[in-house]
Amino acid sequence: MEFSSALLETAVAEFAKLPGIGKKTALRLVLHLLKQEAEDVQHFSDVVSRMRTEIRFCQRCHNVADADICSICANSMRKQDVICVVENIRDVIALESTQQYNGTYHVLGGVISPLDGIGPSQLNIDTLIQRTQKEGTAEVIFALSPTIQGDTTIYYIQKKVSPATKVTTISRGIAFGGELEYADEMTLARSLQNRLPVENYVSSR
Amino acid sequence: MEFSSALLETAVAEFAKLPGIGKKTALRLVLHLLKQEAEDVQHFSDVVSRMRTEIRFCQRCHNVADADICSICANSMRKQDVICVVENIRDVIALESTQQYNGTYHVLGGVISPLDGIGPSQLNIDTLIQRTQKEGTAEVIFALSPTIQGDTTIYYIQKKVSPATKVTTISRGIAFGGELEYADEMTLARSLQNRLPVENYVSSR
Repeated sequence: MEFSSALLETAVAEFAKLPGIGKKTALRLVLHLLKQEAEDVQHFSDVVSRMRTEIRFCQRCHNVADADICSICANSMRKQDVICVVENIRDVIALESTQQYNGTYHVLGGVISPLDGIGPSQLNIDTLIQRTQKEGTAEVIFALSPTIQGDTTIYYIQKKVSPATKVTTISRGIAFGGELEYADEMTLARSLQNRLPVENYVSSR
Repeated sequence: MEFSSALLETAVAEFAKLPGIGKKTALRLVLHLLKQEAEDVQHFSDVVSRMRTEIRFCQRCHNVADADICSICANSMRKQDVICVVENIRDVIALESTQQYNGTYHVLGGVISPLDGIGPSQLNIDTLIQRTQKEGTAEVIFALSPTIQGDTTIYYIQKKVSPATKVTTISRGIAFGGELEYADEMTLARSLQNRLPVENYVSSR
């Protein structure tokens, strides 16, 4: 594309770097912003900048946070001795949207995948093991995507958590090979309610 | 969606205001930015902010510009006495991409559409008429979307331009009801080369 303004060209190039945004869509977004009030665009720009510099990650569960500890870990109304283990932040948001869960989370940052070079040391697994040991965790609920990598991760972790901790997974309401974040809220809520002990889960495969 | 960070929530809400971006896509974009280097995100933020405050519109043709006059109007290698009339900036970019046009542009900012309350006074039509009279324009080429509104706009303007000016439209290579910006470059290039006098065009409808 040919532009008569270098500023426009740079802005389009920046938007086109975002995932799923091509050059035509980027141009559409930029021209949209160009038509908005200057202060609204400044607000957009400030929010993006602040978000990147000020968002922190919870030291306990690795979820996004505005402080050292996230609002879920800091909430004394939630069961602090129940930990739901998820792959990423999007999964936390998906589970919170069901409004069926009243415990805490632990964000692994992915699942064990030797083919992609992702081993246990690249994930937040050590901190999870320590949590179960130090905090006297009553239950660890695995809410990982139902893939071989997810199952491997469950198997690896369940052997290491404190023996006093009950280990469960959300039930197989979700289609095999599906991605957790795209499940509808009802399916996710059911699978939280009907969670199974890990022994049953592994033997049923 | 429930967020454990107010900063994250605000950023997602800002992205979701953009056209064609829903909440899930907004979240994906924000989490992508969160993973990028801080300086890259700052650059993105700065570019958006500068783009809105520093981009100007050419005083002659109303195209985007980095100065009072756009680079196309300021280019003495282009035919300054040929004006291609388009609806918006996206159309200028689409026509420039054909690399077949060596004249100037005039961006109307839309087409006459009484049902939407858009009359000639809301568009950059007066400045176009003045250009043809003051500059001794040799040719005005209409490159408007082939809709009733586009035709109405052509009809309205062609009666007012200087009688010494030849008036043409790009040829009907573009499907009726289609949008100019989505035409492929070959079709656009052909329709520029095979432009028709307006009398022929109106009588062929």
